[in-house]
Amino acid sequence: MQVAAGGAVTWRSDDVSTEEPLEIRVGTVSLSVTMRTPGDDFDLVAGFLVTEGIVNSANEIDAMRMCPEAAAETGELNVVEVLLSPDAASRPLTPRAFFMTSSCGICGKASIETVRTRTSWEVRDDPLRVSSSVLLGLPEKQRSAQHQFSSTGGLHAAALFDPDGALLCVREDVGRHNAFDKVIGWAATQGLLPLRSHMILASGRASFELTQKTLMAGIPLLAAISAPSSLAVELAAESGMTLIGFLRGEQMNVYAGHERINAA
Amino acid sequence: MQVAAGGAVTWRSDDVSTEEPLEIRVGTVSLSVTMRTPGDDFDLVAGFLVTEGIVNSANEIDAMRMCPEAAAETGELNVVEVLLSPDAASRPLTPRAFFMTSSCGICGKASIETVRTRTSWEVRDDPLRVSSSVLLGLPEKQRSAQHQFSSTGGLHAAALFDPDGALLCVREDVGRHNAFDKVIGWAATQGLLPLRSHMILASGRASFELTQKTLMAGIPLLAAISAPSSLAVELAAESGMTLIGFLRGEQMNVYAGHERINAA
Repeated sequence: MQVAAGGAVTWRSDDVSTEEPLEIRVGTVSLSVTMRTPGDDFDLVAGFLVTEGIVNSANEIDAMRMCPEAAAETGELNVVEVLLSPDAASRPLTPRAFFMTSSCGICGKASIETVRTRTSWEVRDDPLRVSSSVLLGLPEKQRSAQHQFSSTGGLHAAALFDPDGALLCVREDVGRHNAFDKVIGWAATQGLLPLRSHMILASGRASFELTQKTLMAGIPLLAAISAPSSLAVELAAESGMTLIGFLRGEQMNVYAGHERINAA
Repeated sequence: MQVAAGGAVTWRSDDVSTEEPLEIRVGTVSLSVTMRTPGDDFDLVAGFLVTEGIVNSANEIDAMRMCPEAAAETGELNVVEVLLSPDAASRPLTPRAFFMTSSCGICGKASIETVRTRTSWEVRDDPLRVSSSVLLGLPEKQRSAQHQFSSTGGLHAAALFDPDGALLCVREDVGRHNAFDKVIGWAATQGLLPLRSHMILASGRASFELTQKTLMAGIPLLAAISAPSSLAVELAAESGMTLIGFLRGEQMNVYAGHERINAA
Protein backbone atom coordinates (compact mmCIF):
# COMPACT_ATOMS: atom_id res chain seq x y z
CA MET A 1 0.00 0.00 0.00
CA GLN A 2 1.35 3.41 -0.92
CA VAL A 3 0.03 6.47 0.89
CA ALA A 4 0.64 9.98 -0.38
CA ALA A 5 0.18 13.29 1.42
CA GLY A 6 -3.48 14.20 1.41
CA GLY A 7 -4.38 10.57 1.87
CA ALA A 8 -4.34 9.17 -1.66
CA VAL A 9 -3.89 5.41 -1.34
CA THR A 10 -2.45 3.21 -4.07
CA TRP A 11 -2.17 -0.57 -3.87
CA ARG A 12 0.69 -2.03 -5.81
CA SER A 13 3.27 -4.75 -5.49
CA ASP A 14 6.75 -3.70 -4.45
CA ASP A 15 10.00 -5.60 -4.86
CA VAL A 16 11.94 -5.89 -1.64
CA SER A 17 15.49 -7.08 -1.12
CA THR A 18 15.63 -10.69 -0.03
CA GLU A 19 17.26 -11.30 3.34
CA GLU A 20 17.93 -14.81 4.62
CA PRO A 21 20.29 -16.18 7.26
CA LEU A 22 23.40 -18.04 6.15
CA GLU A 23 25.31 -20.26 8.53
CA ILE A 24 28.99 -20.96 7.85
CA ARG A 25 30.33 -24.22 9.27
CA VAL A 26 33.94 -25.36 9.22
CA GLY A 27 33.97 -29.03 10.04
CA THR A 28 31.62 -29.32 12.99
CA VAL A 29 32.17 -25.74 14.17
CA SER A 30 29.54 -23.09 13.42
CA LEU A 31 31.63 -20.00 12.71
CA SER A 32 29.03 -17.40 11.82
CA VAL A 33 25.40 -16.72 11.08
CA THR A 34 24.97 -13.71 8.82
CA MET A 35 21.82 -12.21 7.35
CA ARG A 36 22.51 -11.96 3.64
CA THR A 37 20.94 -11.62 0.21
CA PRO A 38 20.99 -15.16 -1.24
CA GLY A 39 23.26 -15.63 -4.25
CA ASP A 40 27.04 -15.95 -4.70
CA ASP A 41 27.01 -17.79 -1.39
CA PHE A 42 30.25 -19.68 -1.99
CA ASP A 43 31.96 -16.38 -2.85
CA LEU A 44 30.55 -14.93 0.36
CA VAL A 45 31.95 -17.81 2.39
CA ALA A 46 35.35 -17.69 0.66
CA GLY A 47 35.53 -13.94 1.29
CA PHE A 48 34.53 -14.35 4.91
CA LEU A 49 37.24 -16.97 5.44
CA VAL A 50 39.84 -14.67 3.85
CA THR A 51 38.82 -11.47 5.63
CA GLU A 52 38.62 -13.22 9.00
CA GLY A 53 42.13 -14.57 8.45
CA ILE A 54 41.05 -18.21 8.50
CA VAL A 55 42.56 -18.88 5.06
CA ASN A 56 45.12 -16.94 3.03
CA SER A 57 43.89 -18.00 -0.38
CA ALA A 58 41.24 -20.12 -2.03
CA ASN A 59 43.83 -22.90 -2.27
CA GLU A 60 43.33 -23.46 1.44
CA ILE A 61 39.67 -24.31 0.87
CA ASP A 62 39.42 -27.94 -0.22
CA ALA A 63 35.64 -28.01 -0.64
CA MET A 64 32.42 -26.14 0.03
CA ARG A 65 28.91 -27.48 -0.19
CA MET A 66 25.38 -26.60 0.83
CA CYS A 67 24.55 -28.86 3.77
CA PRO A 68 22.06 -31.37 2.32
CA GLU A 69 20.55 -32.32 5.68
CA ALA A 70 19.77 -28.69 6.51
CA ALA A 71 18.33 -28.17 3.05
CA ALA A 72 16.14 -31.26 3.39
CA GLU A 73 14.85 -30.08 6.75
CA THR A 74 14.19 -26.43 5.97
CA GLY A 75 13.79 -26.48 2.20
CA GLU A 76 16.33 -23.67 1.94
CA LEU A 77 20.01 -23.57 1.04
CA ASN A 78 21.22 -21.63 4.03
CA VAL A 79 24.03 -23.68 5.54
CA VAL A 80 27.45 -23.87 3.86
CA GLU A 81 29.90 -26.52 5.02
CA VAL A 82 33.60 -25.89 4.42
CA LEU A 83 36.42 -28.41 4.28
CA LEU A 84 39.75 -26.66 4.87
CA SER A 85 43.11 -27.87 3.57
CA PRO A 86 45.19 -29.72 6.17
CA ASP A 87 47.41 -26.63 6.58
CA ALA A 88 44.57 -24.23 7.26
CA ALA A 89 42.74 -26.77 9.41
CA SER A 90 45.78 -27.10 11.66
CA ARG A 91 45.58 -23.42 12.67
CA PRO A 92 43.26 -22.43 15.50
CA LEU A 93 39.80 -21.32 14.36
CA THR A 94 39.62 -17.85 15.82
CA PRO A 95 37.59 -15.41 13.80
CA ARG A 96 38.15 -11.78 14.65
CA ALA A 97 34.91 -11.40 16.58
CA PHE A 98 36.05 -13.97 19.09
CA PHE A 99 39.67 -13.15 19.67
CA MET A 100 38.99 -9.41 19.82
CA THR A 101 37.60 -10.13 23.27
CA SER A 102 40.50 -10.39 25.61
CA SER A 103 40.36 -10.61 29.35
CA CYS A 104 42.27 -7.36 29.76
CA GLY A 105 39.84 -5.06 28.00
CA ILE A 106 39.28 -3.83 24.53
CA CYS A 107 39.91 -0.56 22.75
CA GLY A 108 40.36 0.88 19.31
CA LYS A 109 44.12 0.50 19.50
CA ALA A 110 43.82 -3.16 20.44
CA SER A 111 41.38 -3.72 17.57
CA ILE A 112 43.81 -2.16 15.12
CA GLU A 113 46.70 -4.17 16.49
CA THR A 114 44.70 -7.37 16.20
CA VAL A 115 43.84 -6.75 12.58
CA ARG A 116 47.39 -5.74 11.72
CA THR A 117 48.92 -8.82 13.25
CA ARG A 118 46.58 -11.03 11.24
CA THR A 119 47.17 -9.44 7.86
CA SER A 120 49.10 -11.64 5.48
CA TRP A 121 49.98 -8.79 3.15
CA GLU A 122 51.34 -5.29 3.56
CA VAL A 123 49.75 -2.49 1.55
CA ARG A 124 52.08 0.26 2.77
CA ASP A 125 54.55 -0.01 -0.11
CA ASP A 126 51.97 -0.72 -2.78
CA PRO A 127 52.97 1.32 -5.86
CA LEU A 128 49.40 2.19 -6.90
CA ARG A 129 49.03 5.74 -8.19
CA VAL A 130 45.68 6.94 -9.47
CA SER A 131 44.39 10.21 -10.83
CA SER A 132 41.50 12.03 -9.23
CA SER A 133 39.62 11.91 -12.53
CA VAL A 134 39.75 8.10 -12.54
CA LEU A 135 38.56 8.04 -8.93
CA LEU A 136 35.69 10.44 -9.60
CA GLY A 137 34.49 8.10 -12.35
CA LEU A 138 34.26 4.99 -10.17
CA PRO A 139 30.79 5.54 -8.61
CA GLU A 140 29.11 5.76 -11.99
CA LYS A 141 30.79 2.54 -13.13
CA GLN A 142 29.54 0.84 -9.98
CA ARG A 143 26.00 2.14 -10.33
CA SER A 144 25.63 1.18 -13.95
CA ALA A 145 26.68 -2.38 -13.08
CA GLN A 146 24.24 -2.73 -10.19
CA HIS A 147 21.26 -4.88 -10.99
CA GLN A 148 18.98 -4.92 -8.01
CA PHE A 149 19.34 -1.55 -6.37
CA SER A 150 17.29 0.34 -8.87
CA SER A 151 14.34 -1.98 -8.31
CA THR A 152 14.47 -2.32 -4.53
CA GLY A 153 16.56 0.52 -3.12
CA GLY A 154 17.55 -1.84 -0.33
CA LEU A 155 21.03 -3.08 -1.09
CA HIS A 156 24.60 -2.14 -0.34
CA ALA A 157 27.13 -2.61 -3.11
CA ALA A 158 30.86 -3.23 -3.29
CA ALA A 159 32.88 -2.92 -6.48
CA LEU A 160 36.43 -3.99 -7.27
CA PHE A 161 38.54 -2.07 -9.80
CA ASP A 162 41.91 -2.83 -11.36
CA PRO A 163 44.78 -0.30 -11.22
CA ASP A 164 43.46 1.49 -14.31
CA GLY A 165 39.96 1.88 -12.90
CA ALA A 166 38.35 -0.92 -14.92
CA LEU A 167 35.49 -2.62 -13.08
CA LEU A 168 36.24 -6.27 -12.31
CA CYS A 169 33.37 -7.30 -10.05
CA VAL A 170 30.35 -5.76 -8.35
CA ARG A 171 28.20 -7.45 -5.71
CA GLU A 172 25.11 -6.34 -3.81
CA ASP A 173 23.76 -7.46 -0.47
CA VAL A 174 21.50 -6.33 2.37
CA GLY A 175 24.69 -6.32 4.49
CA ARG A 176 27.59 -4.16 3.39
CA HIS A 177 30.09 -6.55 4.99
CA ASN A 178 28.58 -9.35 2.90
CA ALA A 179 28.94 -7.32 -0.30
CA PHE A 180 32.64 -6.91 0.52
CA ASP A 181 33.04 -10.59 1.32
CA LYS A 182 31.35 -11.58 -1.94
CA VAL A 183 33.70 -9.39 -4.00
CA ILE A 184 36.81 -10.51 -2.13
CA GLY A 185 35.69 -14.13 -2.24
CA TRP A 186 35.18 -13.86 -5.99
CA ALA A 187 38.74 -12.52 -6.32
CA ALA A 188 40.05 -15.32 -4.10
CA THR A 189 38.48 -18.01 -6.26
CA GLN A 190 40.00 -16.31 -9.34
CA GLY A 191 43.43 -16.59 -7.73
CA LEU A 192 43.80 -12.79 -7.55
CA LEU A 193 44.85 -12.46 -3.90
CA PRO A 194 46.54 -10.35 -2.73
CA LEU A 195 44.78 -7.63 -4.72
CA ARG A 196 47.86 -5.45 -5.14
CA SER A 197 47.23 -2.05 -6.71
CA HIS A 198 43.49 -2.70 -6.88
CA MET A 199 40.77 -0.41 -5.54
CA ILE A 200 37.49 -1.21 -3.77
CA LEU A 201 34.43 1.05 -3.58
CA ALA A 202 31.68 0.94 -0.92
CA SER A 203 28.25 2.34 -1.75
CA GLY A 204 27.78 3.69 1.78
CA ARG A 205 29.97 4.44 4.74
CA ALA A 206 33.49 3.20 5.44
CA SER A 207 33.51 1.49 8.81
CA PHE A 208 36.33 -0.17 10.70
CA GLU A 209 35.04 -3.54 9.54
CA LEU A 210 35.15 -2.66 5.83
CA THR A 211 38.62 -1.18 6.22
CA GLN A 212 39.75 -4.38 7.92
CA LYS A 213 38.33 -6.50 5.09
CA THR A 214 40.10 -4.28 2.53
CA LEU A 215 43.39 -4.78 4.35
CA MET A 216 42.95 -8.54 4.70
CA ALA A 217 42.58 -8.77 0.91
CA GLY A 218 45.75 -6.74 0.34
CA ILE A 219 43.89 -3.86 -1.34
CA PRO A 220 45.74 -0.52 -0.97
CA LEU A 221 42.81 1.84 -1.63
CA LEU A 222 39.30 1.96 -0.14
CA ALA A 223 36.84 4.56 -1.40
CA ALA A 224 33.34 5.19 -0.03
CA ILE A 225 30.42 7.21 -1.29
CA SER A 226 29.67 8.33 2.24
CA ALA A 227 31.60 9.07 5.43
CA PRO A 228 34.34 7.07 7.13
CA SER A 229 34.49 6.42 10.86
CA SER A 230 37.31 7.52 13.12
CA LEU A 231 38.60 3.99 13.59
CA ALA A 232 38.50 3.38 9.84
CA VAL A 233 40.73 6.44 9.37
CA GLU A 234 43.10 5.28 12.12
CA LEU A 235 43.41 1.77 10.73
CA ALA A 236 44.01 3.06 7.20
CA ALA A 237 46.63 5.56 8.36
CA GLU A 238 48.50 3.02 10.48
CA SER A 239 48.42 0.45 7.67
CA GLY A 240 49.51 2.72 4.85
CA MET A 241 46.18 2.35 3.07
CA THR A 242 44.54 5.14 1.06
CA LEU A 243 41.07 5.96 2.41
CA ILE A 244 38.68 8.18 0.48
CA GLY A 245 35.23 9.29 1.63
CA PHE A 246 32.37 11.31 0.16
CA LEU A 247 33.42 10.28 -3.35
CA ARG A 248 30.48 11.82 -5.14
CA GLY A 249 29.75 14.36 -7.78
CA GLU A 250 32.88 16.33 -8.57
CA GLN A 251 34.92 15.88 -5.42
CA MET A 252 36.18 13.59 -2.69
CA ASN A 253 37.81 13.76 0.73
CA VAL A 254 41.07 11.91 1.30
CA TYR A 255 41.55 10.74 4.90
CA ALA A 256 44.75 8.71 4.58
CA GLY A 257 47.39 7.80 2.01
CA HIS A 258 46.96 10.90 -0.17
CA GLU A 259 50.36 10.29 -1.80
CA ARG A 260 48.71 7.72 -4.09
CA ILE A 261 46.43 10.33 -5.65
CA ASN A 262 47.50 12.45 -8.58
CA ALA A 263 45.35 15.55 -8.73
CA ALA A 264 44.45 15.66 -12.40
CA MET B 1 42.69 16.58 1.79
CA GLN B 2 39.84 17.44 -0.52
CA VAL B 3 40.26 16.92 -4.25
CA ALA B 4 37.88 18.39 -6.78
CA ALA B 5 37.46 17.57 -10.44
CA GLY B 6 40.20 19.26 -12.42
CA GLY B 7 42.62 18.60 -9.59
CA ALA B 8 42.04 21.49 -7.19
CA VAL B 9 43.30 20.34 -3.81
CA THR B 10 42.17 21.79 -0.51
CA TRP B 11 43.58 20.83 2.88
CA ARG B 12 41.16 21.09 5.75
CA SER B 13 40.18 19.22 8.88
CA ASP B 14 37.10 17.07 8.70
CA ASP B 15 34.99 15.73 11.56
CA VAL B 16 34.48 12.00 11.38
CA SER B 17 32.13 9.83 13.41
CA THR B 18 33.86 8.18 16.30
CA GLU B 19 33.80 4.38 16.27
CA GLU B 20 35.12 2.34 19.18
CA PRO B 21 34.51 -1.25 20.28
CA LEU B 22 32.30 -1.89 23.30
CA GLU B 23 32.35 -5.20 25.09
CA ILE B 24 29.32 -6.27 27.12
CA ARG B 25 29.99 -8.66 29.97
CA VAL B 26 27.39 -10.33 32.14
CA GLY B 27 29.18 -11.72 35.14
CA THR B 28 32.23 -13.40 33.69
CA VAL B 29 30.63 -14.07 30.30
CA SER B 30 31.51 -11.83 27.35
CA LEU B 31 28.20 -11.53 25.50
CA SER B 32 29.04 -9.18 22.66
CA VAL B 33 31.60 -6.88 21.14
CA THR B 34 29.98 -4.14 19.07
CA MET B 35 31.56 -1.27 17.21
CA ARG B 36 29.71 1.81 18.41
CA THR B 37 29.81 5.57 18.73
CA PRO B 38 30.80 6.21 22.37
CA GLY B 39 28.10 7.86 24.50
CA ASP B 40 24.90 6.62 26.13
CA ASP B 41 26.72 3.35 26.67
CA PHE B 42 24.58 2.18 29.58
CA ASP B 43 21.47 2.82 27.47
CA LEU B 44 23.07 0.82 24.68
CA VAL B 45 23.73 -2.08 27.02
CA ALA B 46 20.24 -1.97 28.56
CA GLY B 47 18.71 -1.93 25.09
CA PHE B 48 20.90 -4.80 23.95
CA LEU B 49 19.85 -6.88 26.95
CA VAL B 50 16.17 -6.15 26.25
CA THR B 51 16.25 -6.74 22.51
CA GLU B 52 18.22 -9.97 22.89
CA GLY B 53 15.64 -11.20 25.39
CA ILE B 54 18.10 -11.43 28.27
CA VAL B 55 16.02 -9.10 30.47
CA ASN B 56 12.38 -8.05 30.23
CA SER B 57 12.80 -4.66 31.90
CA ALA B 58 15.42 -2.46 33.47
CA ASN B 59 14.31 -3.84 36.85
CA GLU B 60 16.13 -7.02 35.98
CA ILE B 61 19.42 -5.12 35.77
CA ASP B 62 20.82 -4.69 39.27
CA ALA B 63 23.91 -2.74 38.28
CA MET B 64 26.09 -1.67 35.37
CA ARG B 65 29.57 -0.24 35.52
CA MET B 66 32.52 0.50 33.29
CA CYS B 67 35.12 -2.15 34.05
CA PRO B 68 37.84 -0.28 35.97
CA GLU B 69 40.57 -2.82 35.25
CA ALA B 70 39.96 -2.60 31.51
CA ALA B 71 39.89 1.20 31.70
CA ALA B 72 43.17 1.23 33.65
CA GLU B 73 44.81 -1.01 31.10
CA THR B 74 43.60 0.63 27.90
CA GLY B 75 42.77 4.16 29.05
CA GLU B 76 39.36 3.83 27.44
CA LEU B 77 35.89 3.11 28.80
CA ASN B 78 35.00 0.27 26.47
CA VAL B 79 33.93 -2.61 28.70
CA VAL B 80 30.57 -2.58 30.51
CA GLU B 81 29.97 -5.11 33.26
CA VAL B 82 26.37 -6.03 34.07
CA LEU B 83 24.98 -7.52 37.26
CA LEU B 84 21.61 -9.14 36.57
CA SER B 85 18.85 -9.62 39.14
CA PRO B 86 18.69 -13.14 40.59
CA ASP B 87 15.62 -13.90 38.43
CA ALA B 88 17.25 -12.88 35.17
CA ALA B 89 20.56 -14.45 36.14
CA SER B 90 18.83 -17.81 36.67
CA ARG B 91 17.79 -17.97 33.00
CA PRO B 92 20.26 -19.33 30.45
CA LEU B 93 22.36 -16.66 28.73
CA THR B 94 21.50 -17.28 25.11
CA PRO B 95 21.58 -14.21 22.95
CA ARG B 96 19.82 -14.56 19.62
CA ALA B 97 23.02 -14.86 17.62
CA PHE B 98 23.93 -18.04 19.43
CA PHE B 99 20.67 -19.91 19.68
CA MET B 100 19.75 -19.09 16.06
CA THR B 101 22.33 -21.70 15.16
CA SER B 102 20.72 -25.09 15.52
CA SER B 103 22.13 -28.39 14.40
CA CYS B 104 19.23 -28.98 12.02
CA GLY B 105 19.81 -25.96 9.81
CA ILE B 106 18.66 -22.41 9.66
CA CYS B 107 16.20 -20.50 7.55
CA GLY B 108 14.11 -17.36 7.54
CA LYS B 109 11.14 -19.17 9.02
CA ALA B 110 13.24 -20.54 11.88
CA SER B 111 14.64 -17.06 12.53
CA ILE B 112 11.14 -15.61 12.70
CA GLU B 113 9.94 -18.41 14.98
CA THR B 114 12.89 -17.90 17.27
CA VAL B 115 12.23 -14.19 17.64
CA ARG B 116 8.53 -14.74 18.13
CA THR B 117 8.97 -17.30 20.87
CA ARG B 118 11.25 -14.92 22.74
CA THR B 119 9.02 -11.88 22.65
CA SER B 120 7.54 -10.97 25.99
CA TRP B 121 4.87 -8.78 24.48
CA GLU B 122 2.38 -9.06 21.65
CA VAL B 123 1.92 -6.12 19.33
CA ARG B 124 -0.81 -7.71 17.21
CA ASP B 125 -3.72 -6.22 19.16
CA ASP B 126 -2.10 -2.87 19.84
CA PRO B 127 -4.77 -0.19 19.34
CA LEU B 128 -2.43 2.39 17.78
CA ARG B 129 -4.00 4.32 14.92
CA VAL B 130 -2.06 7.08 13.21
CA SER B 131 -2.78 9.41 10.32
CA SER B 132 -0.57 9.52 7.27
CA SER B 133 0.04 13.23 7.85
CA VAL B 134 1.52 12.52 11.29
CA LEU B 135 3.71 9.79 9.79
CA LEU B 136 4.93 12.01 6.97
CA GLY B 137 6.04 14.55 9.57
CA LEU B 138 8.25 12.16 11.55
CA PRO B 139 11.45 12.33 9.44
CA GLU B 140 11.71 16.09 9.82
CA LYS B 141 11.27 15.81 13.60
CA GLN B 142 14.05 13.24 13.67
CA ARG B 143 16.40 15.26 11.49
CA SER B 144 15.98 18.47 13.42
CA ALA B 145 16.84 16.62 16.64
CA GLN B 146 19.98 14.99 15.24
CA HIS B 147 23.14 16.59 16.45
CA GLN B 148 26.04 14.89 14.80
CA PHE B 149 24.87 13.88 11.37
CA SER B 150 25.06 17.32 9.85
CA SER B 151 28.69 17.64 10.82
CA THR B 152 29.92 14.15 9.94
CA GLY B 153 27.38 12.52 7.64
CA GLY B 154 28.43 9.19 9.11
CA LEU B 155 25.75 8.19 11.58
CA HIS B 156 22.55 6.19 11.63
CA ALA B 157 19.71 7.53 13.75
CA ALA B 158 16.75 6.02 15.56
CA ALA B 159 13.88 8.07 16.95
CA LEU B 160 11.07 7.09 19.30
CA PHE B 161 7.67 8.79 19.08
CA ASP B 162 4.64 8.64 21.33
CA PRO B 163 1.17 7.74 19.93
CA ASP B 164 0.58 11.39 18.94
CA GLY B 165 3.83 11.66 17.03
CA ALA B 166 5.74 13.64 19.66
CA LEU B 167 9.46 12.90 19.67
CA LEU B 168 10.60 11.25 22.90
CA CYS B 169 14.18 10.26 22.18
CA VAL B 170 16.64 10.28 19.30
CA ARG B 171 20.03 8.55 19.26
CA GLU B 172 22.78 8.35 16.67
CA ASP B 173 25.45 5.73 16.15
CA VAL B 174 27.81 4.35 13.51
CA GLY B 175 25.76 1.14 13.81
CA ARG B 176 22.04 1.27 13.17
CA HIS B 177 21.41 -1.62 15.57
CA ASN B 178 23.21 0.37 18.25
CA ALA B 179 21.04 3.44 17.61
CA PHE B 180 17.98 1.23 18.15
CA ASP B 181 19.43 -0.31 21.30
CA LYS B 182 20.25 3.13 22.70
CA VAL B 183 16.68 4.37 22.17
CA ILE B 184 15.11 1.20 23.54
CA GLY B 185 17.54 1.12 26.45
CA TRP B 186 16.66 4.72 27.27
CA ALA B 187 12.98 3.76 27.31
CA ALA B 188 13.73 0.74 29.49
CA THR B 189 15.50 2.84 32.09
CA GLN B 190 12.54 5.25 32.05
CA GLY B 191 10.22 2.33 32.88
CA LEU B 192 8.41 2.69 29.56
CA LEU B 193 8.52 -0.96 28.41
CA PRO B 194 6.57 -2.34 26.67
CA LEU B 195 6.31 0.66 24.35
CA ARG B 196 2.65 0.12 23.52
CA SER B 197 1.26 2.38 20.80
CA HIS B 198 4.66 3.99 20.25
CA MET B 199 6.43 4.35 16.91
CA ILE B 200 10.12 4.01 16.01
CA LEU B 201 11.83 5.52 12.96
CA ALA B 202 15.06 4.30 11.33
CA SER B 203 17.14 6.71 9.26
CA GLY B 204 18.07 4.01 6.76
CA ARG B 205 16.84 0.57 5.82
CA ALA B 206 14.58 -1.74 7.81
CA SER B 207 16.36 -5.05 8.25
CA PHE B 208 15.24 -8.21 10.01
CA GLU B 209 17.39 -7.23 12.97
CA LEU B 210 15.75 -3.82 13.44
CA THR B 211 12.30 -5.37 13.09
CA GLN B 212 13.22 -7.92 15.74
CA LYS B 213 14.42 -5.18 18.10
CA THR B 214 11.19 -3.24 17.53
CA LEU B 215 9.18 -6.33 18.41
CA MET B 216 11.23 -7.13 21.51
CA ALA B 217 10.44 -3.63 22.83
CA GLY B 218 6.70 -4.09 22.23
CA ILE B 219 6.56 -1.32 19.61
CA PRO B 220 3.70 -1.84 17.09
CA LEU B 221 5.01 0.41 14.29
CA LEU B 222 8.39 0.58 12.58
CA ALA B 223 9.01 3.19 9.91
CA ALA B 224 12.15 3.55 7.78
CA ILE B 225 13.39 6.26 5.46
CA SER B 226 14.68 3.62 3.07
CA ALA B 227 13.74 0.08 1.99
CA PRO B 228 12.77 -2.92 4.09
CA SER B 229 14.11 -6.43 3.48
CA SER B 230 11.97 -9.43 2.67
CA LEU B 231 12.50 -11.00 6.07
CA ALA B 232 11.63 -7.74 7.81
CA VAL B 233 8.33 -7.71 5.94
CA GLU B 234 7.65 -11.36 6.83
CA LEU B 235 8.43 -10.87 10.50
CA ALA B 236 6.25 -7.75 10.69
CA ALA B 237 3.35 -9.44 8.92
CA GLU B 238 3.50 -12.57 11.09
CA SER B 239 3.74 -10.50 14.27
CA GLY B 240 0.97 -8.01 13.51
CA MET B 241 3.41 -5.11 13.36
CA THR B 242 2.99 -2.14 11.02
CA LEU B 243 6.03 -1.73 8.74
CA ILE B 244 6.52 1.39 6.64
CA GLY B 245 9.36 2.00 4.18
CA PHE B 246 10.49 4.86 1.95
CA LEU B 247 8.92 7.37 4.34
CA ARG B 248 10.22 10.47 2.63
CA GLY B 249 8.93 13.57 0.97
CA GLU B 250 5.21 13.32 0.48
CA GLN B 251 4.64 9.58 0.51
CA MET B 252 5.40 6.21 2.06
CA ASN B 253 5.02 2.51 1.31
CA VAL B 254 3.19 0.31 3.80
CA TYR B 255 4.41 -3.31 3.82
CA ALA B 256 2.44 -4.74 6.75
CA GLY B 257 -0.25 -3.70 9.23
CA HIS B 258 -1.87 -1.05 7.04
CA GLU B 259 -5.01 -1.11 9.19
CA ARG B 260 -3.26 1.16 11.71
CA ILE B 261 -2.90 3.96 9.18
CA ASN B 262 -5.63 6.49 8.58
CA ALA B 263 -5.16 8.05 5.18
CA ALA B 264 -5.56 11.75 5.99
